[in-house]
Amino acid sequence: MDVGVKNKLAAPETGMARRRFLNTAAAAGLAGVGMAACSEKPASAPVAKASAPSAQPNPGEGAGSIHLKPGELDTYYGLWSGGHSGDMRVLGLPSGREITRIPCFVPDALVGWGITNESKKVMGTKPDGSLKYTVADSHHVHASYKDGNYDGRYAWINDKINSRLARIRLDYFVCDKITELPNVQGFHGIFPDKRDPVDPAINYTTRVFCGAEFHVPLSLADIDKPEKYRTLFSCVDAESMELRWQVLIDGNCDLTATSYDGKLAATNQYNVEGGAKYEDMMSAERDACLFFNIARIEAAVKAGKFKTIGDSKVPVVDGTREANTDPKTALTAYVSVPKNPHGVNASPDGKYFICAGKLSPTGTVIELQKVLDWFDGKLEKADQAIVAEVELGLGPLHTAFDGRGNGYTTLFLDSQVVKWNIEAAIKFHAGDKSAKYVVDRVDVQYQPGHVNASQSETVAADGKWLAVGCKFSKDRFLPAGPLHPENEQLIDISGEKMVLLADHPVRGEPHDFIIFKRELVRPKPVYELGDSDIAVKDPKDSGVERNGKKVTVRLTSQAPAFSLREFRVKKGDEVTLILTNLDKVEDLTHGFAIPKYNVNFIVNPQETKSVTFIADKPGVFWAYCTHFCHALHLEMRSRMIVEA
Amino acid sequence: MDVGVKNKLAAPETGMARRRFLNTAAAAGLAGVGMAACSEKPASAPVAKASAPSAQPNPGEGAGSIHLKPGELDTYYGLWSGGHSGDMRVLGLPSGREITRIPCFVPDALVGWGITNESKKVMGTKPDGSLKYTVADSHHVHASYKDGNYDGRYAWINDKINSRLARIRLDYFVCDKITELPNVQGFHGIFPDKRDPVDPAINYTTRVFCGAEFHVPLSLADIDKPEKYRTLFSCVDAESMELRWQVLIDGNCDLTATSYDGKLAATNQYNVEGGAKYEDMMSAERDACLFFNIARIEAAVKAGKFKTIGDSKVPVVDGTREANTDPKTALTAYVSVPKNPHGVNASPDGKYFICAGKLSPTGTVIELQKVLDWFDGKLEKADQAIVAEVELGLGPLHTAFDGRGNGYTTLFLDSQVVKWNIEAAIKFHAGDKSAKYVVDRVDVQYQPGHVNASQSETVAADGKWLAVGCKFSKDRFLPAGPLHPENEQLIDISGEKMVLLADHPVRGEPHDFIIFKRELVRPKPVYELGDSDIAVKDPKDSGVERNGKKVTVRLTSQAPAFSLREFRVKKGDEVTLILTNLDKVEDLTHGFAIPKYNVNFIVNPQETKSVTFIADKPGVFWAYCTHFCHALHLEMRSRMIVEA
Repeated sequence: MDVGVKNKLAAPETGMARRRFLNTAAAAGLAGVGMAACSEKPASAPVAKASAPSAQPNPGEGAGSIHLKPGELDTYYGLWSGGHSGDMRVLGLPSGREITRIPCFVPDALVGWGITNESKKVMGTKPDGSLKYTVADSHHVHASYKDGNYDGRYAWINDKINSRLARIRLDYFVCDKITELPNVQGFHGIFPDKRDPVDPAINYTTRVFCGAEFHVPLSLADIDKPEKYRTLFSCVDAESMELRWQVLIDGNCDLTATSYDGKLAATNQYNVEGGAKYEDMMSAERDACLFFNIARIEAAVKAGKFKTIGDSKVPVVDGTREANTDPKTALTAYVSVPKNPHGVNASPDGKYFICAGKLSPTGTVIELQKVLDWFDGKLEKADQAIVAEVELGLGPLHTAFDGRGNGYTTLFLDSQVVKWNIEAAIKFHAGDKSAKYVVDRVDVQYQPGHVNASQSETVAADGKWLAVGCKFSKDRFLPAGPLHPENEQLIDISGEKMVLLADHPVRGEPHDFIIFKRELVRPKPVYELGDSDIAVKDPKDSGVERNGKKVTVRLTSQAPAFSLREFRVKKGDEVTLILTNLDKVEDLTHGFAIPKYNVNFIVNPQETKSVTFIADKPGVFWAYCTHFCHALHLEMRSRMIVEA
Repeated sequence: MDVGVKNKLAAPETGMARRRFLNTAAAAGLAGVGMAACSEKPASAPVAKASAPSAQPNPGEGAGSIHLKPGELDTYYGLWSGGHSGDMRVLGLPSGREITRIPCFVPDALVGWGITNESKKVMGTKPDGSLKYTVADSHHVHASYKDGNYDGRYAWINDKINSRLARIRLDYFVCDKITELPNVQGFHGIFPDKRDPVDPAINYTTRVFCGAEFHVPLSLADIDKPEKYRTLFSCVDAESMELRWQVLIDGNCDLTATSYDGKLAATNQYNVEGGAKYEDMMSAERDACLFFNIARIEAAVKAGKFKTIGDSKVPVVDGTREANTDPKTALTAYVSVPKNPHGVNASPDGKYFICAGKLSPTGTVIELQKVLDWFDGKLEKADQAIVAEVELGLGPLHTAFDGRGNGYTTLFLDSQVVKWNIEAAIKFHAGDKSAKYVVDRVDVQYQPGHVNASQSETVAADGKWLAVGCKFSKDRFLPAGPLHPENEQLIDISGEKMVLLADHPVRGEPHDFIIFKRELVRPKPVYELGDSDIAVKDPKDSGVERNGKKVTVRLTSQAPAFSLREFRVKKGDEVTLILTNLDKVEDLTHGFAIPKYNVNFIVNPQETKSVTFIADKPGVFWAYCTHFCHALHLEMRSRMIVEA
């Protein structure tokens, strides 16, 4: 345990303190582990002067004002990971306002997620009907593509704790499917493909790739044989949300990326050493960016060249380094990158993947055509696909793009975003030491992780807004006890220099996000009655139907009343209550809560939901509308009488 | 069901549409129920012209800029009800940014609320150890007082679904106690007292008053006798959070208020009719503002003049109208107000309670000294305490104050805030028809419920900022599916005219809030090790201790490692895991998640938490840090080995 490191890592106060820390870190905790090479400034990199460290006195807003007038609408959507709340946040940008949260992995007491029968079916239950999981750790959000841009159909989000992938419908902005990945732990990076590697007609997303981080024994017999632990890289069908296949691999998967031509997916990998302790996980000088040849993998699966693991029926092909030494038959290509890399991001021109060094101060640029050349036997070594490996600063984690040839990489330890020109970096790497690849630096507050720009990971990257997720906020907001929010900062990247415009506090821990133009989605304003098979389509269909001890209560809501002003059941009944909101007007949502029965949910206009519970407490229970709907909202109730 | 009403109530688009709706509503659904008296403009009220209906082209910011520069701190805290998420939101104002959410009634997967043993103890569990409730509907937030202003000790929040009161410590910003009120349903309004009615040395909050809304049978025998249903008004001890006493009353309690001298508490009441359907609940022309004489009630309890109900040991005194006709012995005073009133608010000069009419277009001003006079036999009828009853507009719900003699009342149906002068209203009511009590009106978007101003319900009301919670937002934000956010709007009230400055979307349904100067709280930046009896104070104390099938795992966290890199238990063990974060630096929080075991929680600097679970699945489970802490955060893990 190195006190010097941990104390200083928290939140350095000034540029000086930060630099001092870096020296301390380099000299102490991280000495000899890839950081020792870092001097105060990246060694030979020609760097521009950093921007002012704190508030800009006269922030330029070249991309437009972030201060919307009342009633003025944002021009971009942001889809943000909700972190531990296991939901997807929907933001409006450039204002940074949170418009809604879409429950996925964790119950939500507003919409009744985890309470209603419909949501429990999506979330998954134990044999006793209770939820299988109620915690999550969601990291990454990505959306479906068509022709290299978002098409407004779906978004996906991961849960690292329980290795789940959730899909969001972008018409209703609701989660409709969750898949738990078999055989893996620590599912971390995700990315949808952008087109099919074989069929040119499929110019849209049909697969979602999922990288698993933690290496685990594939059978209980190997619990005490860490050298046999492995991870898997998974492919999920975008429509059915079923697993298509998995690839057995060596190291721990970090982030995931896909090429614009659909041919390649990749994951950054740390711990190719297979260590079980952090010192062991960073003993090797280089780890890998691992490329998957999608067409070959699917051909292998089709040809039956796979195994299955345990009870899982999912085909597993062998992508380990050992089994893929011959480029002509290899399913995977290991391109080495400096130790313990973190993010991997696809440049919007379709040419490169950029790997961020984390424990190395470098960004590595890998040319995708050269990786394909290696698979085709035209390149001797996969590492020859590396066209640049340049110093960016300390703790590079993720890279965003402006569509004008620049990358924006977060430097966790430097607490900066560095703007750098990719072609200049390639020239510099090729030997032209006059190539000034670093364009600008801006201090951010503090310790940035994810970064993304408007339309960054699409062919339509427009270089207007950059959002940075800072892990520490320390002194940036009013104090509210020991737990600090994180700090999401907005930066104008429309000009040569970056301009920091705003701090936004956010509850931990949001991780990744995407930002895209508002015209790319077409949300529906109300549900359709036919969306539910059990909709109560007319108030006349309301009533109580008994079948032994199973009782079905059907009712409707129309402000300011429920169709049943009271209903009776008997103690011990299994009650299924079905409520359809017959109000049609946009935004006229009703709620339904039953005191002491742990029931609450809302029904949006024309929506139907149901709950099932045992009527185990006799008495009078005033079910009431919990979503303000009308001047007589408080009077909108139904009296549930449970006879003893 | 009146389609005309519900359709129009949703979100009228223009001033004209709204007016048309009001006429429709008056003529149809609400005809003859108190609204029929409403014409297009309140009958005889001299009104100022409404402000521009939408965005202000050049918003004045007399109270200061709401657009903070990066790193600039807010000057006010806002404590907001989280609505169905059952937590308390902490905002910075005037920026409107949400700094944190404090979990109370509903589990929270970030901090591990509802997962850790410590939080389960606060929340309450069933005999099997699972949580008693996981849903909530929190409405009102109020904080402890000293000398008429907030003293930064506590805040309280209610849960209407399960009649719970939660307390927040304002040093750590955490919930430390939850009390479920006995004998009641639909606990709605809360308010702390501001001093003791008898002991002048107690110039601070020692009681919290809780009004119950739904009338229920007090014994199972009365289930089918709605005429015997009653409600109770409860007093909870601010320190112990135990019930002190309850008062049996007639109508349905809505909001609650307390006087600055500590002598009176009051609740607005609708449904004094005791109806079970909304039509019956509004059949009487007037309901009541019900006053409680605190000193007399406590004397009665002390004298043993109480009953108890069912299993509850809480003393219940009789506050029903029938039992309190003699002012000299009365515990309660019924001051009538127009039908189905909603909010009741105490003016900062200590003189008045203002009742908002809801189904009547009026505000009623009750002079507190006259209520005391009635208790003292100096006033013939309690209704003589009414010193004004003036028309404000359609659907008055709540009133805030600026400390300059003005009230700001939300008009739900008019979608407006009306600023009115209280003394002018009193003059007008007394016969001076030239008294122009309406000072200004501003349109808000749309259907406002709660309203509050900076320091409004304190002696230090400063008349700078007004926040309005609008129930409908419709077209004010980017669409995100059928569920719309609510719209919290910020208004500058420093000048004669109100100026609408900003729209803030918020997940439903926040209800009430308070706004106060930042210097009134003194948050602690880190925990103390001694806060927990089970803290693991030294990494050397880490280890696994077995007692039969009960296993205790003790470990500590210091970035980037847990003190146990691995630990072993056996399948079937009951494992209690205790984790202390020994990192001391502010903001250096760690998380701890166990895949497939539904465990996740965070430990802030110097904090200790514990979880208990059955090790029912054999295998290797990588417990990992879920809160970004260090460059080696991803490598920060502990390997839990569950032997078969």
